[in-house]
Amino acid sequence: MLDRSKFKFHSQLRVRNYEIDIQGVVHNANYLLYFETGRFAYLENLGIKVDVTTQQHESKVVVVRNEIDYRAPAKFDDLLDIHTRISFIRDTSFAFEAYIEHLEMKRLVAENVSFHVWLDHRTEKPRRVPDEFRHIVRKFEGDNALITLPTTTA
Amino acid sequence: MLDRSKFKFHSQLRVRNYEIDIQGVVHNANYLLYFETGRFAYLENLGIKVDVTTQQHESKVVVVRNEIDYRAPAKFDDLLDIHTRISFIRDTSFAFEAYIEHLEMKRLVAENVSFHVWLDHRTEKPRRVPDEFRHIVRKFEGDNALITLPTTTA
Amino acid sequence: MLDRSKFKFHSQLRVRNYEIDIQGVVHNANYLLYFETGRFAYLENLGIKVDVTTQQHESKVVVVRNEIDYRAPAKFDDLLDIHTRISFIRDTSFAFEAYIEHLEMKRLVAENVSFHVWLDHRTEKPRRVPDEFRHIVRKFEGDNALITLPTTTA
Amino acid sequence: MLDRSKFKFHSQLRVRNYEIDIQGVVHNANYLLYFETGRFAYLENLGIKVDVTTQQHESKVVVVRNEIDYRAPAKFDDLLDIHTRISFIRDTSFAFEAYIEHLEMKRLVAENVSFHVWLDHRTEKPRRVPDEFRHIVRKFEGDNALITLPTTTA
Repeated sequence: MLDRSKFKFHSQLRVRNYEIDIQGVVHNANYLLYFETGRFAYLENLGIKVDVTTQQHESKVVVVRNEIDYRAPAKFDDLLDIHTRISFIRDTSFAFEAYIEHLEMKRLVAENVSFHVWLDHRTEKPRRVPDEFRHIVRKFEGDNALITLPTTTA
Repeated sequence: MLDRSKFKFHSQLRVRNYEIDIQGVVHNANYLLYFETGRFAYLENLGIKVDVTTQQHESKVVVVRNEIDYRAPAKFDDLLDIHTRISFIRDTSFAFEAYIEHLEMKRLVAENVSFHVWLDHRTEKPRRVPDEFRHIVRKFEGDNALITLPTTTA
Repeated sequence: MLDRSKFKFHSQLRVRNYEIDIQGVVHNANYLLYFETGRFAYLENLGIKVDVTTQQHESKVVVVRNEIDYRAPAKFDDLLDIHTRISFIRDTSFAFEAYIEHLEMKRLVAENVSFHVWLDHRTEKPRRVPDEFRHIVRKFEGDNALITLPTTTA
Repeated sequence: MLDRSKFKFHSQLRVRNYEIDIQGVVHNANYLLYFETGRFAYLENLGIKVDVTTQQHESKVVVVRNEIDYRAPAKFDDLLDIHTRISFIRDTSFAFEAYIEHLEMKRLVAENVSFHVWLDHRTEKPRRVPDEFRHIVRKFEGDNALITLPTTTA
């Protein structure tokens, strides 16, 4: 189970009627959409613009792995709290941790760890996560995130 | 174009990242989901509980026709205002009218008229829209909605 | 009801489990996705490539109106036959008609008329539907489609 | 990476236009839908009926964890091969392994391990995976699946 004390950011989301399945609960694939929504809100909160509509960037970020643990089902009209943090930034990759909590019932709904790789847009090869991104995340997360920062030579 | 002066209820909704298509705008099918969300909010506001999870009802309501006019595309993160009203209640059917407006830009995004039929749950045959439903809607909409009410004999 | 004798093309589609809603039937918004799939198959059959991934085109086509009549619900694993045709091409617009039939039960599931406008990509203004498109559709549909063709001066 | 030699069943699926995202590739959440489709096809092939529409069962199966590795993006109209197997059945739980391959290009698209728990419908507590299910899977998978079978006393 993820260490909840390390999360500094959360966003909210209400379950819409078309997101529940035949069993009356949120379909298991939709949580991935919710977690993604949480990551967008997190980045926006850090002043990092996620421009998904333009394709003229020199780099792009792709998801390479998702782990989801389903704890208790969410239902129609539930108000959910999505807690999101970046847990590490390595050379060309970084990870988000997140958990969804049922706001009223304070019940854990689902947990997610997602792994992302920074790619050069043309070559589609991994490239170093930009230092600017490292610094912004570092400033917000402090020691909670394991971030390799550029060494400054004395 | 729908007569905007007749609408008394609206609800809000923010476009989520996974609802936009390859062209960077909300996929045309998603507006049907938004309008449905507006209808649910409308009914909830009138104190009418839409219990989609139970199937032990004696009647159910089905959509029989949808008309959607697309006016201007909505984009990621747009805050939308969904205006919703019931325009008529006939013997076994009723209709919703709705339009979506881009909140900041005050721009019309899409319009919808949907037609619904009240069915007996077992026989699946149309049955009279309940008088209680007529009275609740009548009370809220007043003369804006064309509603056949039960005649009271003197 | 659409005139079925005028349809020359159909494609098939199986209802997937995640497309049914809490009531056990295909959610009403998903039929729009099915009809769109039918239009893509129709155009592909006519040798018209729908390149949705590139945005470097000089023109694009947008949906401006959808009408859907729901006749009988489709269920999980149903094999559906989507009949699709272009019914008219005017100056800057054209329309598709389509109906979905339950393959085994020969039962009408839903009908759709969709209206499309050809836009100049940069100005976003309507422009004339290309003559090449008119000729290809005319050749396939014959007199079933009302198509304004370019006049040839003697 | 999953051991491909252990898979005996595969089903096919074509990427539909509405399943690709703004970047022109299948949205990462949709692979979960594809893998689920693969599991349904697998169970159907073994003669195990998945009745999602009835809620009058004495037990139900829920997903408790999903792991997905994204290897190479699938695009619009790609024909995908979904290879699916049950890898183990323990007391109250079992797991599926699956991978998606691009049919023409023989390229690995994504891999998935999903964990499922058998619940008593009323109490919502885990209960033993039925012996009938164990035997059917054992007969199909042979030694590839780790299945605890009921012991027969001599």
